[in-house]
Amino acid sequence: MLQAISLTIAILGCLMIFPALADFMAGNPDWIVFTVSASVNLFVGGAIWLAMRRHDPDMDRREIFIFVPTVWLLSSLASAMPFYLSGLDVSFTDAMFESVSGLTTTGSTVLSNLDSLPPGILLWRSLTQWIGGLGVVVMGMVLLPSMRSGGQQLFQLESSDKGEKPFARSHVFTERIAILYLAVTTLCAITYLLLGMDPFDAFNHAMTTVSTGGFSTSDLSMGLYGTTGMLLASTFFMAVGGLPFIFLIRLSAGRFEWDIQITYYLVIVLSAALLVLINMPEGAFDTPAHRVATALFNVTSIITTTGYASQDYLMWGPAAIAIFFFLTFAGGCAGSTAGGFKQFRFVVIHQIIVNRLRQTIRPHQMEQMKYGQRLLDPQIASSVVTFSFLYTGTFIVFALIYGLLGLEFDTAISASATALANVGPGITEAIGPAGNFAGLSDAIKQMLCFEMIVGRLEIMSVYVMLVPGFWR
Amino acid sequence: MLQAISLTIAILGCLMIFPALADFMAGNPDWIVFTVSASVNLFVGGAIWLAMRRHDPDMDRREIFIFVPTVWLLSSLASAMPFYLSGLDVSFTDAMFESVSGLTTTGSTVLSNLDSLPPGILLWRSLTQWIGGLGVVVMGMVLLPSMRSGGQQLFQLESSDKGEKPFARSHVFTERIAILYLAVTTLCAITYLLLGMDPFDAFNHAMTTVSTGGFSTSDLSMGLYGTTGMLLASTFFMAVGGLPFIFLIRLSAGRFEWDIQITYYLVIVLSAALLVLINMPEGAFDTPAHRVATALFNVTSIITTTGYASQDYLMWGPAAIAIFFFLTFAGGCAGSTAGGFKQFRFVVIHQIIVNRLRQTIRPHQMEQMKYGQRLLDPQIASSVVTFSFLYTGTFIVFALIYGLLGLEFDTAISASATALANVGPGITEAIGPAGNFAGLSDAIKQMLCFEMIVGRLEIMSVYVMLVPGFWR
Repeated sequence: MLQAISLTIAILGCLMIFPALADFMAGNPDWIVFTVSASVNLFVGGAIWLAMRRHDPDMDRREIFIFVPTVWLLSSLASAMPFYLSGLDVSFTDAMFESVSGLTTTGSTVLSNLDSLPPGILLWRSLTQWIGGLGVVVMGMVLLPSMRSGGQQLFQLESSDKGEKPFARSHVFTERIAILYLAVTTLCAITYLLLGMDPFDAFNHAMTTVSTGGFSTSDLSMGLYGTTGMLLASTFFMAVGGLPFIFLIRLSAGRFEWDIQITYYLVIVLSAALLVLINMPEGAFDTPAHRVATALFNVTSIITTTGYASQDYLMWGPAAIAIFFFLTFAGGCAGSTAGGFKQFRFVVIHQIIVNRLRQTIRPHQMEQMKYGQRLLDPQIASSVVTFSFLYTGTFIVFALIYGLLGLEFDTAISASATALANVGPGITEAIGPAGNFAGLSDAIKQMLCFEMIVGRLEIMSVYVMLVPGFWR
Repeated sequence: MLQAISLTIAILGCLMIFPALADFMAGNPDWIVFTVSASVNLFVGGAIWLAMRRHDPDMDRREIFIFVPTVWLLSSLASAMPFYLSGLDVSFTDAMFESVSGLTTTGSTVLSNLDSLPPGILLWRSLTQWIGGLGVVVMGMVLLPSMRSGGQQLFQLESSDKGEKPFARSHVFTERIAILYLAVTTLCAITYLLLGMDPFDAFNHAMTTVSTGGFSTSDLSMGLYGTTGMLLASTFFMAVGGLPFIFLIRLSAGRFEWDIQITYYLVIVLSAALLVLINMPEGAFDTPAHRVATALFNVTSIITTTGYASQDYLMWGPAAIAIFFFLTFAGGCAGSTAGGFKQFRFVVIHQIIVNRLRQTIRPHQMEQMKYGQRLLDPQIASSVVTFSFLYTGTFIVFALIYGLLGLEFDTAISASATALANVGPGITEAIGPAGNFAGLSDAIKQMLCFEMIVGRLEIMSVYVMLVPGFWR
């Protein structure tokens, strides 16, 4: 376990070299901060890794449950360092908030005047999301299935069927995922460039698009580049970020294996976009195409938990607000960079409901539940059910906490939803697409950090640790 | 089926004689309206009943699924008649809204200046809730278990185990329930009288307290009589209305059989009251006892889905609003007059979660789920799960509809929650404890009527009818 954690810290240290270079070239003194942070993390992470690397790296299931939250917490601390020490002059809470929001690919921010910030900080924000997104995909494909919680065991890969020692076979997966991830990001950056984005912005936005993170280099978010073509391109790459990476890996190897959750994903995106489209105010757009692109872009942004905005959609009336609020919960596909409830769980719940209603009518007729063409193990269905209840409960408890800490009702429930699903913006003025989380109290920000991590860990690992039997 | 429906209509006709008498004695011309309505319903209901009474009254399961929504719909039409024809001068939609809100014991109202309304209308409002409450208890104890949906089959009575012909044995139950219901109502009225309530108000409030309906004879709701003693007495009788009637029947026969859902019910009421108490503004109350009574009263009012208010609790800050919002969903015990999600489902969900988390840690250790001391049939757990998902889905769909029809986001979600759970008031100014539903558009009121009925029918019977296989 220590080996994997220290390696992660060392990797974060390596990545800090890029913003150091960017600031050095721009003549910004923050290059020293990034260099120091890089050195510290590389040294601490590297030293522990070197000392531990001869140990058997495999973890048993219980250790994985402890490893996942630990690595996310320590990574957040490590990547908060540059924010805290930089010229931004932010509090430790704010630095942690920005770091957690980055690594969990949430995209809520406490920083403003982004357009005038030095390149190092902007690049570092994008990098935390990019590496966080990669971490999520690896976690989703390698760790979560072997944790057998939340229903992710549905995605146990054939070759890791034993499941007890996922790390032993994880290297080859991680490598393939990383290559694909890099390739899609590059493709996205080139597309943005060709569509006329400034190279620095294209590079940054590509990283926060494919990771479905949503940090931008401008306060206007993608509104700065809101042409029809740019919106559609961004929609496409966000949507790709929300697809199961195993599907993409197979596709890139020429194997087309449809995953039923992608059908649900597309249906929800398209029907939500249609509903929003009907409710959008008249005359605010140059062309019908721009109108459609804007609806698709903002809906995809929320459902993939990216959190970009092309404009303040809170101005589109109460129906749009309600749609965006409920979309906040949905999330992309399992095994993607997206957070949220995740589409495969809708597939499972749909099966549970249809099955039960049929049995209510004909009690003696037994039917099997299915996930696409495969039979659905009732144990997995039960995991999905438990996840759903705990997800709802977590949302409610945090919403109540934000209420107790003084947030208005609608801001409280929206903050809870957006942090838990790692989306980013909320649906009230205070924390909406045109707002900012800086105005919240430190206590609220700290709870939001906690909730973002809980959401990113698919909540179950946190709850499993709360069961007394776990520690025996 | 026709027999049972016509009998219900005839009973409603009989009840209309009381407001006719009240208005006659008060010299209000509405006594003619009530006499005409009574005659029409008595004649139509009575004639069909007389023609059908020799038929076998038993229904099979499929007929019950059709019977339940039909009887609720036709009863609503019948009891809307006096509202529509009376001197109130309301539209048909408003008359239906008041009638549905009454019979479903919701308690939302489109009428104002209640204090100056003639006694007939006020009495009729209370009577619709009182008879609606009785109907709900009978439905919950006799019909829902035999419908084997939503998990209510957990409360299949031993003596009706065959379950296919619930009406055959239902007469004796219905009689016992009615006697107990009448006794508790009388006790409540006497208590209100002794505590100083005007006799007419005491009688009316007793009917809407025990039925957990919440209609009042004053715009101030129970605020008009908000002494510590009155609040505590009302809290007690609302709480009793939210208890399983089978528990009360056994108790009155000297048999004490605890139902585990009552534990959950008490825990939620007390912890919510405590949370509210902490957040109540300083200095607004004469004595600490009055403060505690106010918190208990308003929390119990929402959780039992009564909907009385002793004052505008929306003024107690964002935390209180969030608490009242989430409480709206909870509801009382199964087999009571209360609506909402219902406490026994929390028991089942708790079992599902604990069981699944334990199995995540020790996959090879099988454990049984329990409901109190009894083993919990996995089929029932599965029914509860399906109910939960459909309940959530129904809430979301109606909230979106209200948004599309123009309600502000928080009013839309609050209206959907309060109608589905048959609570009454919402948590925004427009529809809150100090507000009124009169200002909403006709389309919204019609959808709310539909949602109140869907909620009162425990939603499942509606969804079962949507399955194509049901009609084959």
